[in-house]
Amino acid sequence: MNINGKPTRTILPSSDGQAVDIIDQTQLPHRLAFLRLRTLAETAHAIASMQVRGAPLIGATAAFGVALALREGVALEAACQTLAATRPTAVNLAWALARMQAHLQALPPAAQGEAAWQEAVRIADEDAAQNRRLGEHGAALLNEARRPGKARLDVMTHCNAGWLATVDYGTALSPVYVAHEAGLRVHVWVSETRPRNQGLLTAWELEQHGIPYTVIADNAAGLLLQRGEVDAVIVGADRIAANGDVANKVGTYLKALAAQAAGVPFFVAAPRSTIDFACPAGSAIPIEERHGDELRLCLGLDGAQQLASVRQLPSASAVANPAFDVTPAALVRAIVTERGHCPASGEGLAALYPKSRP
Amino acid sequence: MNINGKPTRTILPSSDGQAVDIIDQTQLPHRLAFLRLRTLAETAHAIASMQVRGAPLIGATAAFGVALALREGVALEAACQTLAATRPTAVNLAWALARMQAHLQALPPAAQGEAAWQEAVRIADEDAAQNRRLGEHGAALLNEARRPGKARLDVMTHCNAGWLATVDYGTALSPVYVAHEAGLRVHVWVSETRPRNQGLLTAWELEQHGIPYTVIADNAAGLLLQRGEVDAVIVGADRIAANGDVANKVGTYLKALAAQAAGVPFFVAAPRSTIDFACPAGSAIPIEERHGDELRLCLGLDGAQQLASVRQLPSASAVANPAFDVTPAALVRAIVTERGHCPASGEGLAALYPKSRP
Repeated sequence: MNINGKPTRTILPSSDGQAVDIIDQTQLPHRLAFLRLRTLAETAHAIASMQVRGAPLIGATAAFGVALALREGVALEAACQTLAATRPTAVNLAWALARMQAHLQALPPAAQGEAAWQEAVRIADEDAAQNRRLGEHGAALLNEARRPGKARLDVMTHCNAGWLATVDYGTALSPVYVAHEAGLRVHVWVSETRPRNQGLLTAWELEQHGIPYTVIADNAAGLLLQRGEVDAVIVGADRIAANGDVANKVGTYLKALAAQAAGVPFFVAAPRSTIDFACPAGSAIPIEERHGDELRLCLGLDGAQQLASVRQLPSASAVANPAFDVTPAALVRAIVTERGHCPASGEGLAALYPKSRP
Repeated sequence: MNINGKPTRTILPSSDGQAVDIIDQTQLPHRLAFLRLRTLAETAHAIASMQVRGAPLIGATAAFGVALALREGVALEAACQTLAATRPTAVNLAWALARMQAHLQALPPAAQGEAAWQEAVRIADEDAAQNRRLGEHGAALLNEARRPGKARLDVMTHCNAGWLATVDYGTALSPVYVAHEAGLRVHVWVSETRPRNQGLLTAWELEQHGIPYTVIADNAAGLLLQRGEVDAVIVGADRIAANGDVANKVGTYLKALAAQAAGVPFFVAAPRSTIDFACPAGSAIPIEERHGDELRLCLGLDGAQQLASVRQLPSASAVANPAFDVTPAALVRAIVTERGHCPASGEGLAALYPKSRP
């Protein structure tokens, strides 16, 4: 997709195969800064600290991390262990590491470095191509969801599942980009997504592509759905269990409940690598608990809504900060992948991916 | 209730009847600052800018605003119009102004000033006493909601409906204070309440009284309810329609949906002055749209979760900022008032207040 009108991707392998450049997403939308990752440690830090985030991008970044680690002389298994420990919920991370291991472990150590780099490049290229196809399938679903007589399609999303969360195109936003390219009038309700405000990444992305959007507090999603101001909700996923339950950014479940209450379809868009056929149900998905400091600071606004202070919670305050929640399959109208779409159920997923049952 | 162990109230009339002191709630929890209101304009500004907030406290403050206006020589009706325009959703504001007008308009202008002051003092005193009684009724309900075998009662709330939102005791938190005083182990899940972060006021209040609490992002409420970590949800209200629909801080509806899905009781606590028998249903309640700047700024955290920057949305970003939402009566287990509790329905409210039908 584009930054300031120029095509780019979120992860750019250097031509000498010694490093990858990423966009430091903790700086956006305040500042666009690229960061060069040269080592396993830098890659693991970039994932854990959310300089790169989004399940598909985490997977691709980890694949490059394996290649960088091998060039440093770190053993394959040790590299995979370090990277696997960075974030527990997104299964794409485990998927990419398993694919790298399967591809590399039969090779002699001397050949692993170059092979790892090539496989990481393939994973990244495949992610971009898959997401484009997912976008085409999803755009058709969104168009069907538009209410009769409405010129504009109003889509609500949560967190950032746009091209910044992937190598390119995005998952939840790929259908939005495809629909926009096809000339459909699309408007996106962008949820702030506390505590890390990934909604601002979504706003920044949509701004780059001239797609109208409106930012809301996460709390406002129910009211907008209740008022009929949303035609469809579409989100990405960090892990989809074999029964169709979906782990995604915390707050997703609340939007799914409100969509159901309003009779609005709730779609989940994700590539095959997000589906964990070995995980029977959402209750088996580990939910990452992140540092409470993400919540301890907040802005103090004065009476004129201007910034008056940066406030801090009372020092004794306990904070709980789960980063994901699980949306039961029953609340999901369809799961959209690069292969098409299916009901959110064991049967639906198994029909779409017949060879993938564990 | 207490600040640093000393009893206080949120609004303190001066002994000479020329001013009232309030706590500037836009400064909390960062700084405890009192502010003296001497004029109608200062009072209207304090309400509109949320230096005082919370439906019952807005009502009491407006009553004092009428008294201050009369001392400035402003006519009764003009004063009420100015104050009524500050915030549209909380009906306690209209209720307090109507009560002041009914009490004063039969009096000769020369007598209105002193009578207005005395009536405002009565409104404030009654609010404190009512909330205490409400707390006693609510504590019994909370205690019944505690799951068998649990030593601790886990209560979730939204926004701040504690003593800071009233003249004293609070509405949703009054039952928590009463239960705590009675020796019950209570722990409160405190929702941040974006965009204005009134959850931090709740944290500050509970901290003053030694009641354990945990702050969460608004987005985390669904997960906690789903996991069985909440025995009851209790919130305040800005307006209760005659059919039991409840307008309260935006995000309340999402918690009510999640409570229903988890089989957890959802209670609304409010004094009689919050019930609008002239309003047939939630759809007739005006929803305040506040300034988008409340959402435009957010904290940028670096990779170590430390404050790196104050970020701003792309300048072209549209923002929607509805301050309230409506929770349908069907999601509310009971409405708790100073008189007891009742089902959230037209019949329930009419039985509790038989003379108040419009």
